[in-house]
Amino acid sequence: MKELVIKASLLKNNNEMAEKNRQLLGNQKVLTINLMGSPGAGKTAVLEKILKYLKNYKVAVIEGDLYTSKDGERIQGQGAEVIQINTAGACHLDAAMIDRALKELEQRQLEVLIIENVGNLVCPASFDLGEDKKIVVMSVTEGNDKPLKYPHMFQRAHMVILNKIDLIDFTDFNREEFYKDIKSLNADMAVVETSCRNEEGLQEICKYLIEEMKIKKDSI
Amino acid sequence: MKELVIKASLLKNNNEMAEKNRQLLGNQKVLTINLMGSPGAGKTAVLEKILKYLKNYKVAVIEGDLYTSKDGERIQGQGAEVIQINTAGACHLDAAMIDRALKELEQRQLEVLIIENVGNLVCPASFDLGEDKKIVVMSVTEGNDKPLKYPHMFQRAHMVILNKIDLIDFTDFNREEFYKDIKSLNADMAVVETSCRNEEGLQEICKYLIEEMKIKKDSI
Repeated sequence: MKELVIKASLLKNNNEMAEKNRQLLGNQKVLTINLMGSPGAGKTAVLEKILKYLKNYKVAVIEGDLYTSKDGERIQGQGAEVIQINTAGACHLDAAMIDRALKELEQRQLEVLIIENVGNLVCPASFDLGEDKKIVVMSVTEGNDKPLKYPHMFQRAHMVILNKIDLIDFTDFNREEFYKDIKSLNADMAVVETSCRNEEGLQEICKYLIEEMKIKKDSI
Repeated sequence: MKELVIKASLLKNNNEMAEKNRQLLGNQKVLTINLMGSPGAGKTAVLEKILKYLKNYKVAVIEGDLYTSKDGERIQGQGAEVIQINTAGACHLDAAMIDRALKELEQRQLEVLIIENVGNLVCPASFDLGEDKKIVVMSVTEGNDKPLKYPHMFQRAHMVILNKIDLIDFTDFNREEFYKDIKSLNADMAVVETSCRNEEGLQEICKYLIEEMKIKKDSI
């Protein structure tokens, strides 16, 4: 019981800080994406591809990892500004970490900020960072049962990127059940099937991001 | 700072309860395995296969999931006694949950208890359940960089099951780097490469479990 009280208070503090981030990013009209998913779902690979297509936009990336800066180094090669956050073992990014990273990104006149969260299908779902959109990357090799097994993550997402679709024929992934489960959790969910090997679906994600950047820019 | 203090106290309570579980399971000479890994690594599939090979042993399974009992139902088909724990959203099993499950398993004269933890490569590493051995399942489709990115999980494990090895040729998985990283984290780690499709490696895991059961039975 004690644990629950503590968690509620942590979440309340987090939500207040997230709202502060949201206002700051709103004033600057920066579209902000919280990219989440299991370890190995392909978040960094998808992000590398997106950055290649968004070369003409002002993009920054916040990379969340437990300890290493491996993903940050991969992303750095794509020309975007990268801030690496090491959570020192914590299982998710929180709004205070993003607040500190935003101080490093002041005066950049960004159009889009993509936050790659720690690889984890559970904890990051509970922590608002101040983002506009939550996108979940999951790979077909994880199995089609994951949305129902990790419902919070999928209920709260605006888009699911179903990645490694080039491997689907080597797995038991049941597309029909997957889409049925996704719709049952979140009827408005957009799903884009992608492969970082053959570039399938990646332009569609970028088209979505560009449209959302425009909506953000035109917002009052 | 406050958060760290709270966490330390939660872990202290957990460790005390884990020690109680360990004594109880030790008195009954039940080999106890904590099976961990990312969502979709193949924990349940590996477990299904293991149970098939261990038909002549007294086995029970504790299934940890956020909400559903899908995995418990899969395992039930294999003839082992199954206790399903739903964590109601919590990202790991803890020793108190296992204590409650053990009350359901009294008088069973088990030889081995396998606990399938919540799919998560971060949080379960911090929570001792009272087990003898920690085994991590990871799939080649997750990428060879995972041990260094999630070091706690791999440092504390006794064995890594490198699963979905039948898919390795369709991925960029670098075996050499993987083994180098594993050795750098934990020089004594056993690694078994497995495929639930062609049954590769599964008998080797069962051989290990049978040997450990014997060691447990002969312990004073």
